[in-house]
Amino acid sequence: MNDLYPSRKETESIIERVDPTVYSDKVVGEYSIGNISRKEYEDNGYVVFPNLFSQDEINEMINEIDYMASNEDLAKNEEFIKEPGNNELRTIFNQHLFSSLFEKISKDPRIIDKVKQLLGSDVYIHHSRVNIKPAYKGKSFPWHSDFETWHSEDGLPRCRCLTAWIMLTDNTQFNGPLYLIPGSHKKFVSCKGFTPEDNYKKSLKKQEYGVPSINAIKELTKNSELVGAYGKAGTLVIHDGNILHGSPDNISPHSRTNTFFVFNSVENKPVKPFGAPENRADFLCLKDFNAIEAK
Amino acid sequence: MNDLYPSRKETESIIERVDPTVYSDKVVGEYSIGNISRKEYEDNGYVVFPNLFSQDEINEMINEIDYMASNEDLAKNEEFIKEPGNNELRTIFNQHLFSSLFEKISKDPRIIDKVKQLLGSDVYIHHSRVNIKPAYKGKSFPWHSDFETWHSEDGLPRCRCLTAWIMLTDNTQFNGPLYLIPGSHKKFVSCKGFTPEDNYKKSLKKQEYGVPSINAIKELTKNSELVGAYGKAGTLVIHDGNILHGSPDNISPHSRTNTFFVFNSVENKPVKPFGAPENRADFLCLKDFNAIEAK
Repeated sequence: MNDLYPSRKETESIIERVDPTVYSDKVVGEYSIGNISRKEYEDNGYVVFPNLFSQDEINEMINEIDYMASNEDLAKNEEFIKEPGNNELRTIFNQHLFSSLFEKISKDPRIIDKVKQLLGSDVYIHHSRVNIKPAYKGKSFPWHSDFETWHSEDGLPRCRCLTAWIMLTDNTQFNGPLYLIPGSHKKFVSCKGFTPEDNYKKSLKKQEYGVPSINAIKELTKNSELVGAYGKAGTLVIHDGNILHGSPDNISPHSRTNTFFVFNSVENKPVKPFGAPENRADFLCLKDFNAIEAK
Repeated sequence: MNDLYPSRKETESIIERVDPTVYSDKVVGEYSIGNISRKEYEDNGYVVFPNLFSQDEINEMINEIDYMASNEDLAKNEEFIKEPGNNELRTIFNQHLFSSLFEKISKDPRIIDKVKQLLGSDVYIHHSRVNIKPAYKGKSFPWHSDFETWHSEDGLPRCRCLTAWIMLTDNTQFNGPLYLIPGSHKKFVSCKGFTPEDNYKKSLKKQEYGVPSINAIKELTKNSELVGAYGKAGTLVIHDGNILHGSPDNISPHSRTNTFFVFNSVENKPVKPFGAPENRADFLCLKDFNAIEAK
């Protein structure tokens, strides 16, 4: 298959995105996106919905994560990733497969209606995760496009995927929030460096391949300012698979916890990785392609 | 001499500040602080003066730093500190002794009038420094009170000292700005851990002693939110020697450069260190106690 987004090469380059960002403007269910938000998403590569989930719903999810984090048997699974340098839980992958609560959230029409509309088709979950950036010592994460990895290491052919994520704690300017480069989803940074074998094991702790250089970041911020994804617990953010984002460390006394669901179009199933010698582990690229029904 | 601020002990504790924050309300020269700003400084432990220096003045200072950074002979001095893990300049100490431009700035009445008023006496420079937090890779700095170090390792008996600093680039929410805990200057965190010999050599790159625990930070933020010291190049900030501050790393494409001048009251000359086996190097605790004349 033709590689429309070559990356992990000898030199870095910035190329044009081939695919649209919004695949449809057709209303899908009660919770579709309005025209203004859809235009915002198309232009900026992300859109924010404050207060989409209630404090009660957030509390339920937080309790579920606390339960999963304290369950020693669960924590033995490779989906449970520790903070570099200590033993604290940093990430749970595929929480929707370990928890019926998160399975329910992953099908919530407040999310799915929007996602199906933007991607213009049925969708399935490429993976999901909970990210915990602990107070005082949570580590930064370098700039990257998710899609660059999903294409290079998982074999997603087209950029027809996105992440819908819910803030489970307040995300402030102080607790290691996501920084985004608005509009960067329209370019693709073809990254320097050949992917080594088993790269994903390291990259889950600290990404080293698929990281644009400072020159690329400067180029992509020439006409835009960074934005911080700030909001109260209960805020939903949807960001395009290819938008560049990163996050600083969290020296604040407040931890920052978010739950992410990555949706891919059923018309964009993975093939062989385009920029890696082998596929990443199965849990990072789920193969259940059944279309999600909102409920 | 009685130790009013014991620190570097077996356990951490939070004690009351013994000293006032503002030592005088007497007008000192044309550039004294007005009542409102002085009250703000007293309550919060810091005060911000936007646009105090012109863009031309800032450009001159930036050029001077570029010159100093590129001068290989100068860079051999121990006052020139490199970023951990690479060879880039992170800090120049006592730039006012290496540069007549910075000597002039250190006596600028726009600074000195305010400082003499707040400290209620003549003042001298305890040390000065330029901090460069490079774009994309500048490292975070943990929470600390400057005075905790100057007392424990330099022997400043009382908290009658402050830092006046000028933003030489914009300081934004994205480029690793100083975070401050308003009001924290009224408490003193007596820190855990006995100071090892030659601690300062490590601590200039990454401070490990004199760093309050997460519990102390939580306690001191119970009744206040963090603030970020944001502003345009040319902004002057004055912060009390004992206010807790730290900074996250800088993943943004913009470097952040500030020039700091630490002033101490001539009535508060250093004695033997209160919490360390020996004095730090001379360049960190200057012994020229001549009162600065504003000019």
